[in-house]
Amino acid sequence: MPAVDKLLLEEALQDSPQTRSLLSVFEEDAGTLTDYTNQLLQAMQRVYGAQNEMCLATQQLSKQLLAYEKQNFALGKGDEEVISTLHYFSKVVDELNLLHTELAKQLADTMVLPIIQFREKDLTEVSTLKDLFGLASNEHDLSMAKYSRLPKKKENEKVKTEVGKEVAAARRKQHLSSLQYYCALNALQYRKQMAMMEPMIGFAHGQINFFKKGAEMFSKRMDSFLSSVADMVQR
Amino acid sequence: MPAVDKLLLEEALQDSPQTRSLLSVFEEDAGTLTDYTNQLLQAMQRVYGAQNEMCLATQQLSKQLLAYEKQNFALGKGDEEVISTLHYFSKVVDELNLLHTELAKQLADTMVLPIIQFREKDLTEVSTLKDLFGLASNEHDLSMAKYSRLPKKKENEKVKTEVGKEVAAARRKQHLSSLQYYCALNALQYRKQMAMMEPMIGFAHGQINFFKKGAEMFSKRMDSFLSSVADMVQR
Repeated sequence: MPAVDKLLLEEALQDSPQTRSLLSVFEEDAGTLTDYTNQLLQAMQRVYGAQNEMCLATQQLSKQLLAYEKQNFALGKGDEEVISTLHYFSKVVDELNLLHTELAKQLADTMVLPIIQFREKDLTEVSTLKDLFGLASNEHDLSMAKYSRLPKKKENEKVKTEVGKEVAAARRKQHLSSLQYYCALNALQYRKQMAMMEPMIGFAHGQINFFKKGAEMFSKRMDSFLSSVADMVQR
Repeated sequence: MPAVDKLLLEEALQDSPQTRSLLSVFEEDAGTLTDYTNQLLQAMQRVYGAQNEMCLATQQLSKQLLAYEKQNFALGKGDEEVISTLHYFSKVVDELNLLHTELAKQLADTMVLPIIQFREKDLTEVSTLKDLFGLASNEHDLSMAKYSRLPKKKENEKVKTEVGKEVAAARRKQHLSSLQYYCALNALQYRKQMAMMEPMIGFAHGQINFFKKGAEMFSKRMDSFLSSVADMVQR
């Protein structure tokens, strides 16, 4: 593992084999990071999906509890008690649904979104600049080859000057694209730590908020209600 | 809505039109209850399914966080901090996964299981006894018809006695099956209230336990860890 932080921009113009070799290390690292980020995003989206499904499921349950009243049972004896208890439970499930909905939104905004942005912005940028750098390097190689194939005769001076200008332009282009590419690779190293931790900070904050509010909601009030319902059922 | 609690067993033998009419009310009620129970079970199974998926999703996320260490990043600078933070988050997700797993088990045992048992035992019993009662009534009707079609001549006395015995046996059988059927319908009315409320009591107890333990877990210890990670990220 080389003890370097970044690709030096002043090395870009010379484009030495050492610089190229260091570049390949940064590229390998970016490739590993892209793969890992995709897997992490998948795992996080699964958690978000489960959270979302919990919202929909609690919504359906609450509706189903209210629906008892509308069944028009042929025998309705004792139903008032059941109806009012199921109404209460429906309200509890609604409150729970609010908490789940809030958590789902938080997970979307503070866990899934940052890692999607990291992928779409930082990783995609590196990959685009890699392609552009590859194209510019190719062009530069081609114009260099063209120049070196020119006959050494004096009467070709004019053509040589033309091709020389082409080579210079290609080198400027390659230099510029390598500067951009190096910058993006350096920035990726800089962003890496934060990109990995930020979504989990969002996740943890969401969970803390969820449990805090949930514990407040299911307070002693709920306990006493449950024991009175349990008494009723035992009667 | 008739002001009755139950089908009187002493009316079963006479099998009057009034008793038959009351029986149909109980049957209609049982039909409505069966439909409603199936819908409620479906909604509860959806909640259980979402809870179960949350267990699997958090398990996958925890593994993915640990996997960062095994990526062999080409550039490992500053990774020790990321690795140890992701390890800590993985432990947090594991603890959360334990809570989710416990809740899923409680929902299975105290919400889904009771309502499945109500359906498989009480509702299925009523439906089976309804079929048996129908068969026995049919047999009784057939033997009655056979008896009434017998010629009135004196020489048929022996046949009449035979068929008379058949009728009596069919009536005993029908009477017995109606007694069982009435009992099951009465028991269903008795169980109805409890069967509707018991799963929701289980649900509420599970949630209370979940939030209580979750709030304890995400205590101040977690808050201070998060702010130190946030500081690190900002540096």
